Amino acid sequence: MSYTAELIAVGTELLLGNIANTDAQMLSKGLSALGINVYYHTVVGDNPARLKQAVQIAKERADIIITTGGLGPTYDDLTKNVLAEAFGKKLVYHEQSAARIRAYFDRVRREMTENNLQQAMLPEGCTVFDNDWGTAPGCAFEADGVGVIMLPGPPGECSAMFQYRAAPYLQSRSEGVILSRTLRIFGMGEAALEAKLRDRMNAMTNPTLAPYAKTGEVELRITAGAKDEAQAAALITPVEAELRGMFGDLVYGADVNSLEEALLPMLRDRGLTFGCAESCTGGLIAKRMTDCPGASAVFRGGIVSYVNTVKENLLAVPAVLLERHGAVSAPVAECMAQGARRALDCDLAVAATGVAGPDSDERGNSVGTVFIALAAPGGVWVRQLTLGFGRDRIRNLAASHAFDMTRRYLCGLTVV
Amino acid sequence: MSYTAELIAVGTELLLGNIANTDAQMLSKGLSALGINVYYHTVVGDNPARLKQAVQIAKERADIIITTGGLGPTYDDLTKNVLAEAFGKKLVYHEQSAARIRAYFDRVRREMTENNLQQAMLPEGCTVFDNDWGTAPGCAFEADGVGVIMLPGPPGECSAMFQYRAAPYLQSRSEGVILSRTLRIFGMGEAALEAKLRDRMNAMTNPTLAPYAKTGEVELRITAGAKDEAQAAALITPVEAELRGMFGDLVYGADVNSLEEALLPMLRDRGLTFGCAESCTGGLIAKRMTDCPGASAVFRGGIVSYVNTVKENLLAVPAVLLERHGAVSAPVAECMAQGARRALDCDLAVAATGVAGPDSDERGNSVGTVFIALAAPGGVWVRQLTLGFGRDRIRNLAASHAFDMTRRYLCGLTVV
Repeated sequence: MSYTAELIAVGTELLLGNIANTDAQMLSKGLSALGINVYYHTVVGDNPARLKQAVQIAKERADIIITTGGLGPTYDDLTKNVLAEAFGKKLVYHEQSAARIRAYFDRVRREMTENNLQQAMLPEGCTVFDNDWGTAPGCAFEADGVGVIMLPGPPGECSAMFQYRAAPYLQSRSEGVILSRTLRIFGMGEAALEAKLRDRMNAMTNPTLAPYAKTGEVELRITAGAKDEAQAAALITPVEAELRGMFGDLVYGADVNSLEEALLPMLRDRGLTFGCAESCTGGLIAKRMTDCPGASAVFRGGIVSYVNTVKENLLAVPAVLLERHGAVSAPVAECMAQGARRALDCDLAVAATGVAGPDSDERGNSVGTVFIALAAPGGVWVRQLTLGFGRDRIRNLAASHAFDMTRRYLCGLTVV
Repeated sequence: MSYTAELIAVGTELLLGNIANTDAQMLSKGLSALGINVYYHTVVGDNPARLKQAVQIAKERADIIITTGGLGPTYDDLTKNVLAEAFGKKLVYHEQSAARIRAYFDRVRREMTENNLQQAMLPEGCTVFDNDWGTAPGCAFEADGVGVIMLPGPPGECSAMFQYRAAPYLQSRSEGVILSRTLRIFGMGEAALEAKLRDRMNAMTNPTLAPYAKTGEVELRITAGAKDEAQAAALITPVEAELRGMFGDLVYGADVNSLEEALLPMLRDRGLTFGCAESCTGGLIAKRMTDCPGASAVFRGGIVSYVNTVKENLLAVPAVLLERHGAVSAPVAECMAQGARRALDCDLAVAATGVAGPDSDERGNSVGTVFIALAAPGGVWVRQLTLGFGRDRIRNLAASHAFDMTRRYLCGLTVV
């Protein structure tokens, strides 16, 4: 049988719009991968009466309630007090958690106040989730036929506490295991992919298949439930093979976070270095590459040539070429990539030039016109793109295409 | 009197964790600026029964219900049907909206299906919000003592429809006007700012003062209600002056989105050009500068020198300096900024070198050690920073410090 969960986020900062409820997104994704259906998210402020009401509503309609936030010392332990009361539990002092909190303050050499020790008060008989990423411990208990899990609010803590504490706890209490594998696909829209897969997806029950769209990409998550990990993996393997057969070289990786993250080990393992020349992307290709820890093993650098004279001086793009074709053109993209390869002394270099908007350029190239080039030992390739509207979107898609061309080159696929 | 609102987001994609509920954040911030208190956010899937239940709960506890999503043709007009039923309204055909939808499809040269025209069915007697950013119109009505507003879900549409349709509608129905002004402060933490302002904030009723924390920054929003705009402005002006007196040159702008956005007109108005040399920030300074439309008026380009040989070859940093002090040092930061100023031929250049983590560097500089330099006509300045943990956070703070140094130089303030 499948359980339903309701997420309750506690924090006035959410109701003021100070932050978005990204904890709910992370948990929803994680719970769905565990085969748990999330039916409601609720957000309430730091207000005991309104939290109590939200908990009472959730108790009636969910098998599992997961709260985020309201555990810090400045909240007067709002969430723990209200949840304990709603489920008729007492809060008791948990010595081990108190010791952890003391040790934390020693480590960061900050003074601990009595308030901080309040965090060691936990519902009697609960399972304590040690917090290695902050001070407030999380916890879980079952009462009145409902499972309750409380997690800290700061996204970094919440995410780690879910992954390493709550998810294993939920798995240990379910009869089997849930395993999931995520294939990442670049170069096909969500609508096209869904059209291709709809009948297949609807017919599947175990494993299930869920698509997640991102800018220019689709994630395809296969989730299987079984008695043990080996059996779950055995359910996933043929579906993965079928999907890889279906989408072929559009699949760039499994269980990776981004194109650039997939690219990094491919370059590193072959001892190849990478660099870039950027006009419309304005540093985004370099930024995304260096978002990956360990990028320094392959990434030598980049040249952001936002104006033509920088293209001429640092990338040796001939003035006559800029004059004849304009900066937004295939020949200039090509020259930029070759120039970056020479100037940065790297094995592979990509270049991006285009119109990110909001206005079209002085030569009448419309917003979204972008040329991406790759210069590599075997030659130079240029991809011409028409990327629609939205400055951020265009820039992100352009960077993704640069990574995609590099990946396809390294895999021996057609690059353009 | 002040009204309370509840936001109900409709969309299974939110419950699967496909997207975060950023509409709720945007609306919360916008409603708070209108003096409306948001007490709950609720998220439900594309499920009529569960949406109906959520609406019934909201009806009991809120003065205003704002829904987002569930208006598109693929949703069978879920939100409109459920809300109309919950408030005893019929849906009627709105010819003007139908004409707009037809015109939209003509404009984008896509074929319109009958489904699309369903979007022109709207609750009888409602105020229609024309959608200039998509196809689904929004609407508003009052019934059973509750105000109801329905907005489309896609963030771009939702945000524009709130700003240009729902917010003016809400303002027109309130007795006076609400005006707000946001001061942006760099260089003081939220805790320190709150400590300085807490008593003042608590004592204020009109205008009110609300701090919003961002990485390294605080936004301070002053909100005043009055009979007309002039009176509201008259309430804000002395508070703004008081705050500017209190935080002095840490205030970098009012009603701007970022340090770089504040910097752009300062550079442009003086005819100055800008460039950068980046190591640890890996392209982020250039990326953030070029996030601003119109950056090409001042930004010439950047050099991402992730490895030492690129620092030597493109920025003319002497090998002996790198050898003696290491890449993460004040002399190298200084040389990088001067090198960028020469290589990019710009008036002002910034440079960033440091350890973004996750590991400390080979010379034992700990994660978060960063040097930022500014080279300008009057000299070179270096700021040494210890930025704590978190790769993204460190990189973002480093970029912000580079913009801050530039701003302070342009304002004739002490730079370091």
